[in-house]
Amino acid sequence: MKIEILRLSHRIQRDPRLSTHVALTARAFLASKLYYSGDKDSSLENSLNKVTKQFGGNFKIEYVKDPTKLIKEKKDYTIVHLTVYGETLPSTLTKLKKSKNLLIIVGGEKVPPEIFQLSDYNVSITSQPISEVSALAIFLHELHKGKELTKKFPKAKIQILPSKKGKKFKK
Amino acid sequence: MKIEILRLSHRIQRDPRLSTHVALTARAFLASKLYYSGDKDSSLENSLNKVTKQFGGNFKIEYVKDPTKLIKEKKDYTIVHLTVYGETLPSTLTKLKKSKNLLIIVGGEKVPPEIFQLSDYNVSITSQPISEVSALAIFLHELHKGKELTKKFPKAKIQILPSKKGKKFKK
Repeated sequence: MKIEILRLSHRIQRDPRLSTHVALTARAFLASKLYYSGDKDSSLENSLNKVTKQFGGNFKIEYVKDPTKLIKEKKDYTIVHLTVYGETLPSTLTKLKKSKNLLIIVGGEKVPPEIFQLSDYNVSITSQPISEVSALAIFLHELHKGKELTKKFPKAKIQILPSKKGKKFKK
Repeated sequence: MKIEILRLSHRIQRDPRLSTHVALTARAFLASKLYYSGDKDSSLENSLNKVTKQFGGNFKIEYVKDPTKLIKEKKDYTIVHLTVYGETLPSTLTKLKKSKNLLIIVGGEKVPPEIFQLSDYNVSITSQPISEVSALAIFLHELHKGKELTKKFPKAKIQILPSKKGKKFKK
C-alpha cells in the first residue's frame, strides 16, 4: 500500500514547527511522501530532507499550489480526510486497510467544505479537539498495526539504538 | 491509573501552538493533568480550560517553575520520559501498564541529562525523529488499548457526533 499525506494551508508565520512535526510523523509512520499547500517553505523542505538523508528511507516532500487539483488527480487513491467531525476510526479502519493507495489529508485551521465532499472517508481520531499531528500518528499506527514502532529505515547514516538511559547511535 | 503529563521548556515565542497540541492530545487521550515548565503562558492555559469547559472532562493545566522538583515529589508515580533515545515501546509497555500512577515527560528541544536519570523509563516511539505530540498520542493510545477513541467526556456542553460528511454537534 502506497501512503501519501497532504497537509493543507501551511503558514510560515503561524505554524512552521507544526508542519515540521506533521512531516516527521508522516515519515516515521511510513508514509512515502508529504504534499503541502499554503506557503511554500524551503526551510521546511530542507529540514525534512536533512532528516531523511541522516536517518534513512525515501521520504519525499513537495509543495502543491492547488490541493483540490491534486486530490482530483489521485484517481487510484482512497482519499481520507482526518477531521474531528468524521466517522470513528474503529468503524472505518477495516475498509481502509483494503485500499491500494491512500492519500491522507490533514488540515490547517479552517478546512473548506469541498475537502469533506471530495474525500471518500472523513475520519475522526477521538471525536475530541486534538492535533493533526496526533491524529495522523494514531491513524498510521493503526493502519500498520504498530509495525512502524520497530521499523529499520534503509540507507540510514545514523541509527538510534534503544537505550535505558542516555543516547546511543550507530554510524 | 492516574496519568499526568509534564511538558518541559514551553517557549511562548517559538512554539505556542505546539504546546497547545501537546495539551489537547493529553486531554483527549485521557490524562488528567498537564504540568508545563519554561515560559508561563496564560493564553495556553485559557485555551485549554475553554476546551475542557466546552467539551467536558476534568483536565487541569498547571505551570511549574522547577520541573525537577516536581518529578522528585511524585514518589508514588512511575516516571516515563518519552525520547527518541529510549527503549522501544513494545519492550516496556507490559511493565508500564502495571503502574499505579504515571508521570509522562515530553521534552522541548534540549532535554537535560538529569531527566534521563530521574526517569524510571526512557521510552522511544519508533526510534526515529518524530514529534512529542505524536509520541504522546501513541504512548497513551497503547496504554488505553484504544479505548480513548470512542470515550465520552462527562459534563460536555458540546458533543461532536461522528459524521460521513460535514459537521454534526449535540448541545
